Amino acid sequence: MSIKIGIMGYGNLGRGVELAVKEAPDMELAAVFTRRDPASLKILTEGAAVCSADSVQDWAGKIDVLMVCGGSATDLPVQTPKYAGMFNVIDSFDTHARIPEHFANVDAAAKEAGTVGIISCGWDPGMFSLSRVYANAILPEGKDYTFWGKGVSQGHSDAIRRIEGVKDARQYTIPVDAALDAVRSGKNPELTTREKHTRECFVVLEDGADADRVEKEIKEMPNYFSDYDTTVHFISAEELAANHSSLAHGGFVIRSGKTGVNKEHNHIIEYSLKLDSNPEFTTSVLIACARAAKRMADEGQKGAKTMLDIPPAYLSPLSGEELRAHLL
Amino acid sequence: MSIKIGIMGYGNLGRGVELAVKEAPDMELAAVFTRRDPASLKILTEGAAVCSADSVQDWAGKIDVLMVCGGSATDLPVQTPKYAGMFNVIDSFDTHARIPEHFANVDAAAKEAGTVGIISCGWDPGMFSLSRVYANAILPEGKDYTFWGKGVSQGHSDAIRRIEGVKDARQYTIPVDAALDAVRSGKNPELTTREKHTRECFVVLEDGADADRVEKEIKEMPNYFSDYDTTVHFISAEELAANHSSLAHGGFVIRSGKTGVNKEHNHIIEYSLKLDSNPEFTTSVLIACARAAKRMADEGQKGAKTMLDIPPAYLSPLSGEELRAHLL
Repeated sequence: MSIKIGIMGYGNLGRGVELAVKEAPDMELAAVFTRRDPASLKILTEGAAVCSADSVQDWAGKIDVLMVCGGSATDLPVQTPKYAGMFNVIDSFDTHARIPEHFANVDAAAKEAGTVGIISCGWDPGMFSLSRVYANAILPEGKDYTFWGKGVSQGHSDAIRRIEGVKDARQYTIPVDAALDAVRSGKNPELTTREKHTRECFVVLEDGADADRVEKEIKEMPNYFSDYDTTVHFISAEELAANHSSLAHGGFVIRSGKTGVNKEHNHIIEYSLKLDSNPEFTTSVLIACARAAKRMADEGQKGAKTMLDIPPAYLSPLSGEELRAHLL
Repeated sequence: MSIKIGIMGYGNLGRGVELAVKEAPDMELAAVFTRRDPASLKILTEGAAVCSADSVQDWAGKIDVLMVCGGSATDLPVQTPKYAGMFNVIDSFDTHARIPEHFANVDAAAKEAGTVGIISCGWDPGMFSLSRVYANAILPEGKDYTFWGKGVSQGHSDAIRRIEGVKDARQYTIPVDAALDAVRSGKNPELTTREKHTRECFVVLEDGADADRVEKEIKEMPNYFSDYDTTVHFISAEELAANHSSLAHGGFVIRSGKTGVNKEHNHIIEYSLKLDSNPEFTTSVLIACARAAKRMADEGQKGAKTMLDIPPAYLSPLSGEELRAHLL
């Protein structure tokens, strides 16, 4: 019997989840829930319902896993614990510093309701976290390196947009090749923030804005830009729309570690992603996690989980026998 | 209380396990078991016992996990099921085609004894298998590529040594850069065996052996060499010992997959290893699996498992809280 999926929120993530469900041989989309007028929403899946977010509790028992597709800043801290009280849930909560608090809130709600809530699924947190945990467990003596990009950082783009005189902006985070090469050499370099990434900004000015002042404000902005080598390009709104609307992203997780009687052997473990669409890759991970949530709930597990708690085989539609025969 | 480890067999793998136990904050080596005269064995760990393999059953209850460090051809098919009848066990069984049969044998023995036996741990099978399973679960529409090397293949080196007139040999498997680049480009190329790897052989001849005949026999050997571009170098025994005793190895697992309404977005997931010591890295993985075996057994699980069944957090000495706070 196929796994019935609900989608809460139909933005970039919600649409990506819908596409990922289409690719899953063992799933079907039951309903999309929206805070907008359901009649205004066109979805891709024939036969799936489009409903008001307020009516979601009517779907208890008709949905196996609800994908909570809100933002990490204000939506998920409220929504994930709330819906974990009704359904098995998946979210992509990515505010690293607040994960322990979010985990505790979802855990309490899910344990009371007898559901499974897998939080912080995606690639970072998510696949990158898994790479760090595996590599640290294997090579206890070593050093971790994470590089992001090339890709647009929404947080940094938003920070530029808040500057007076800026109409629109995109900021790319770019890993420095020389730093990657140094890490891969096994030399375990100590790298400063500036040595690891550069930042490239494409900015559309309001009419009459002072480009020199805007560039100075960007480059001197603490936390966001002052510790980096930053380049600023001023372009037209048309050029921004034409050349900078890509959702591509990616990155590298590398652990360099040593073994041997005298620590004479070095090992490099590297995991990397090169993604044409950050939201579509993220939602492909979320849907694999939904499969695991169903299996864990069917076993009688309950409470909050992360990808670190999921036996990898649970993410696959294949059986244990098939996996051992073909992928082990 | 620390996890008590036993090592069955003190070759390259057994010695690597001993080093990995030294690095584990939560483990101690209880005993090494050998088929040789125990008095002839010098181990690195003070306070650990050295015992005859025949006496291992006397250690029931005194060892949490027994690391079965034999060869896949003839040792492990017998030893792992046998010792799973007495202890939680870990092995590195790597004959891919016979894994289902080995799994069934260990499963039966472990279920009867109430133990956990994790088989086929290491990097391939092992970490490479995990990479394939994760990447396939995330990107159901795509193509897998595995490249090995640069590193010595024992099987191919042995095949050369069986040729008349050959005194000794080492064979390196080398991935072809152009093939790796084509895969990383997202073009999903169909690659022949010849296009993926080259084979480089360093051969020491017996006195008076015919080099031309040996080279021809190597290059035309079916399965092992005839489908590859193979280079043969004849060198002295001294040169072989001086320059070709490295245990380095590595490889790449890449999945290239598509998402999107019209499959317009390509994604590349790449996992790679660059290892100075193949046996020491392998045993570092085995020891992380031993930690998981203890946890799974403590939960009341029993039977055969593979790394695909292990929640990643179980491999780490850190708690769930610590992992979520620092590595997620």
